[in-house]
Amino acid sequence: MTKEEIIAAKIRELKSFSGSHSPSIETVLQLIPEIEMKIDACFLSNPYATELFLNNLQEQIISKGHLRKMLEYYPPQNRDIGKFIQTFTNISAENIFVGNGAIEIIQAILHQFAERNVAVPIPTFSSYYEFLRQDCVLHTYLLSKDNDMALDLYKYTQFISDRKVDTAIIINPSNPTAEYITQQNIIDFLDNNKHLKNIILDISFVHFAYENEQYDYINYEQLIYQYPNLILVKSMSKDFGIAGVRAGYAIMSADRVTTLLDNGYLWNSSGMAAYFFKLLSQKSFQVDYEVIRKKYIAEARMFYESLKANKSVQVLPSKSNFALVELPSHINSFDFTIEMLTKYHIYVRDCSDKIGLKGNYVRIASRSEAENEKIVSALSLITNSF
Amino acid sequence: MTKEEIIAAKIRELKSFSGSHSPSIETVLQLIPEIEMKIDACFLSNPYATELFLNNLQEQIISKGHLRKMLEYYPPQNRDIGKFIQTFTNISAENIFVGNGAIEIIQAILHQFAERNVAVPIPTFSSYYEFLRQDCVLHTYLLSKDNDMALDLYKYTQFISDRKVDTAIIINPSNPTAEYITQQNIIDFLDNNKHLKNIILDISFVHFAYENEQYDYINYEQLIYQYPNLILVKSMSKDFGIAGVRAGYAIMSADRVTTLLDNGYLWNSSGMAAYFFKLLSQKSFQVDYEVIRKKYIAEARMFYESLKANKSVQVLPSKSNFALVELPSHINSFDFTIEMLTKYHIYVRDCSDKIGLKGNYVRIASRSEAENEKIVSALSLITNSF
Repeated sequence: MTKEEIIAAKIRELKSFSGSHSPSIETVLQLIPEIEMKIDACFLSNPYATELFLNNLQEQIISKGHLRKMLEYYPPQNRDIGKFIQTFTNISAENIFVGNGAIEIIQAILHQFAERNVAVPIPTFSSYYEFLRQDCVLHTYLLSKDNDMALDLYKYTQFISDRKVDTAIIINPSNPTAEYITQQNIIDFLDNNKHLKNIILDISFVHFAYENEQYDYINYEQLIYQYPNLILVKSMSKDFGIAGVRAGYAIMSADRVTTLLDNGYLWNSSGMAAYFFKLLSQKSFQVDYEVIRKKYIAEARMFYESLKANKSVQVLPSKSNFALVELPSHINSFDFTIEMLTKYHIYVRDCSDKIGLKGNYVRIASRSEAENEKIVSALSLITNSF
Repeated sequence: MTKEEIIAAKIRELKSFSGSHSPSIETVLQLIPEIEMKIDACFLSNPYATELFLNNLQEQIISKGHLRKMLEYYPPQNRDIGKFIQTFTNISAENIFVGNGAIEIIQAILHQFAERNVAVPIPTFSSYYEFLRQDCVLHTYLLSKDNDMALDLYKYTQFISDRKVDTAIIINPSNPTAEYITQQNIIDFLDNNKHLKNIILDISFVHFAYENEQYDYINYEQLIYQYPNLILVKSMSKDFGIAGVRAGYAIMSADRVTTLLDNGYLWNSSGMAAYFFKLLSQKSFQVDYEVIRKKYIAEARMFYESLKANKSVQVLPSKSNFALVELPSHINSFDFTIEMLTKYHIYVRDCSDKIGLKGNYVRIASRSEAENEKIVSALSLITNSF
């Protein structure tokens, strides 16, 4: 076997153990030392934000000798961390549930609040169906290729009504399609679905979306005061580039937060996550972050335009920090992924395991400007050579 | 109000918000800046182990520039971290469930596996009853003061049978009584209760227990192969002094692990926790740790003897790293706690909120040798002056 074939076989084996999620890149690199990865374009995060966090951690914690305290002592409890989140969301702490990453939140709300019939547009982030209780019925609403995989909220509302759904899920911007639905359209949907028990709106990618040319932040948080059935889910792994910290929060009615906390989740944030949320409540950090958020959006937009310029592939509309790319029918997406990795040392997400997504799709994240240029060039070289 | 009264009022207020758990010391110190705490004898951990962990973290991660990778990328998934735990427990990874602290594990197993009737000796660690599902019935088995709060396993077995219990809980060594039940007695209990659906044995403090004068580690892990209804719960916060990392594991039948993972818990460990478990699988770390584990036990034993020498208090038998101390009836335990904190800057755990514990009890942890001397001396000064 060639080195390339060995790597492909090993990755295939790893994937079979990891279920519908990609194996973590840590695991891939550790178990397949043959791989030399230079650009991780599978990982959907703002790399400039990671840097900003690390600089603050170095300055405020490590260089001041506070790391021991952070690792040794019990971190603040859920409600105390909620107070940090209150200061930057302007949402009362009683409406905030802090999670050990968004995945814990998804699990918690599905287990506690979904009644019986749950609707989710597919393809989607797999945790939304995998973590459903066994006594729930999953109603998948299949997005159509003919319509660029866009979610038509009127048809979705009809589907919800037909299926007697109590809990509806929307990811906006969507993962993996990257589609962004405007706030006005979401509000119309909320108005038309006030009778539902729960509307779960995952806004984990909203820091990368925009509705004007200034890329101003689109505030969905305040909507929970108008729509008591709305539950907002927010990962911090993407916009702040800190997946290893495990941090997320949800915003919902106060009684739901109380129900969750009565079931546990007392000390579910690490000292590092508590520090991150504390940092986020600092005005100066907010200002610094806002600059790099907009810088990253601008670069992601350029990246998207460059991808679209490649006429051998179909790039779905994106107002997020990644794009879903359909390869020409003669290029298998898994083979493409291996070619990118072994020849160009770029790791992209093969989407062949995504339920509801038929075709040769790969998901490619926007990284730093220099890295994006290499990704675009590798894509061209491969699509021209296959 | 005097400074002491202000602090007392503020602590009382904090406690009322924190439920039956002490407010975290981070929260106490942050919200009550008047407090100058020098010794945290509420916190049940081996401080030498914290140091050992920090030294390794510095050497293997921080100084090598690997911190960014740890915080930026998704950590390994649950089953992959289980493989690290496999190497130091000699338990197959398929029997290991990794938790974001023991509290997450307690919540997960109670929610998934408790059928209806759950027995727990009280006083206990409050998560064991607080996180019970609402459709479960809690059967509290009250420990008796006449018997030094010892758990009589034959009477407990009778109680379990009378109440038609399906899930029985034992913490060994116990929290908060510090009693250690020998392994042979636990085995007899397991033999007499094979018909139960679940026996949850919390061994979070077992690294501080001993059955011989060499303080050799007492291995409970292997028992799960003989007793399929046994679930072992293990916090890492105490023995390794890293509560802020949030790390724990449980050992149980492979089908139970699969059931839990089918419900979520995919990325529930942070990068820091993953590193900790990886470190634990290193032979050289294990050797270093074993030395300080025994050193700490020896010091805790000396501390326990010194506490017992104070004849104004009753010290319950302890083979753990703390002691439950009954103050004379004229000294209120909360007032004592405040006096220790404001006059001697020592924080001890007031147990007046512990259900099933009537009397003026405080729980005092063994810290470093020098700190222990100060704790013993402050205790004498206060009990003589009241």
